[in-house]
Amino acid sequence: MMHVLEIKSTRREQFIDVTPEVNSFLAKSGVTEGICLLYVPHTTAGLAVNEGADPAVVDDILAQLSKLVPLENDYRHMEGNSAAHIKSLICGCAKNIPVTRGALLLGTWQRVFFCEFDGPRRRKLIIKILAG
Amino acid sequence: MMHVLEIKSTRREQFIDVTPEVNSFLAKSGVTEGICLLYVPHTTAGLAVNEGADPAVVDDILAQLSKLVPLENDYRHMEGNSAAHIKSLICGCAKNIPVTRGALLLGTWQRVFFCEFDGPRRRKLIIKILAG
Amino acid sequence: MMHVLEIKSTRREQFIDVTPEVNSFLAKSGVTEGICLLYVPHTTAGLAVNEGADPAVVDDILAQLSKLVPLENDYRHMEGNSAAHIKSLICGCAKNIPVTRGALLLGTWQRVFFCEFDGPRRRKLIIKILAG
Repeated sequence: MMHVLEIKSTRREQFIDVTPEVNSFLAKSGVTEGICLLYVPHTTAGLAVNEGADPAVVDDILAQLSKLVPLENDYRHMEGNSAAHIKSLICGCAKNIPVTRGALLLGTWQRVFFCEFDGPRRRKLIIKILAG
Repeated sequence: MMHVLEIKSTRREQFIDVTPEVNSFLAKSGVTEGICLLYVPHTTAGLAVNEGADPAVVDDILAQLSKLVPLENDYRHMEGNSAAHIKSLICGCAKNIPVTRGALLLGTWQRVFFCEFDGPRRRKLIIKILAG
Repeated sequence: MMHVLEIKSTRREQFIDVTPEVNSFLAKSGVTEGICLLYVPHTTAGLAVNEGADPAVVDDILAQLSKLVPLENDYRHMEGNSAAHIKSLICGCAKNIPVTRGALLLGTWQRVFFCEFDGPRRRKLIIKILAG
């Protein structure tokens, strides 16, 4: 069971909470026990599972990533988005989350974020569910 | 087949080797071929697969992560643990390891570590096994 | 279905595009829908999914990782390769990629790289496929 979620980012850098959309597809799939693989088919975006209750956490993550990986930095790649490629590598483009009783087994404070590092753009998120 | 492992960290930052507990549950599961998904349902902890033979490696990892992500750094999140959230993002909260002949297919030097970044606390590690 | 791919790195640090080898094994496996788990059983190497069209992107990634994690840095581990262990942790040793219509569901610009951080060496990459 696979689904492609369309995402539209509105800023250059943005964490977009996709937890409701993932749980919604999971509910439709009818799978109660298994694994949910989330996959971003882009090289300047990524995925993160982190705190969603206080939006300042995401602000702190984005600010610190930009300190570690400056936008301008004598990069060789000429498109001007090397920083986005490197942040994508740090976050990763694939996350697995256990599924139990028909829902993602997230912790109390965990939310799933699509991480835009080179927006605004139209993006895709692959949701793949394996029963088991 | 899913199991929740209870973990008690004793320091603010700590890599706890959980390889024996994961292999023990794997043995009980009876699964010989498949995938083991390890998942941390926390936003200030993570998972790492790295060298366990020389404990200095883990010390070096923790020290370097703290250089990259200082504990105090004008963060906006007021709980004082933004660094832990960011380190959690860098390590990731999910790891997949192949299972073959009833055991984790780890390399010679690899051990699985629960990564505490905001302890001491009581924590959980989800172990999910998919046959296949 | 599992396969061990032998890799021979030729430099200390090197991203090796293994996409053709992974797709080749996938074709032999006969699996059309599922998940492909790539796993590196080493503690000074890793995996990355990122841009392969312009080799400057990989150069920028390696250069920035070396700025973040210097080769020499008062590390406690005496083998001289702590930086490689830390870079391995940042990249991660496991990646999941969805499989559909018998191929990896990679984005237009995505390639799968074996990341050598302590070569040249003979290395292994585990390819595990789960149908579903």
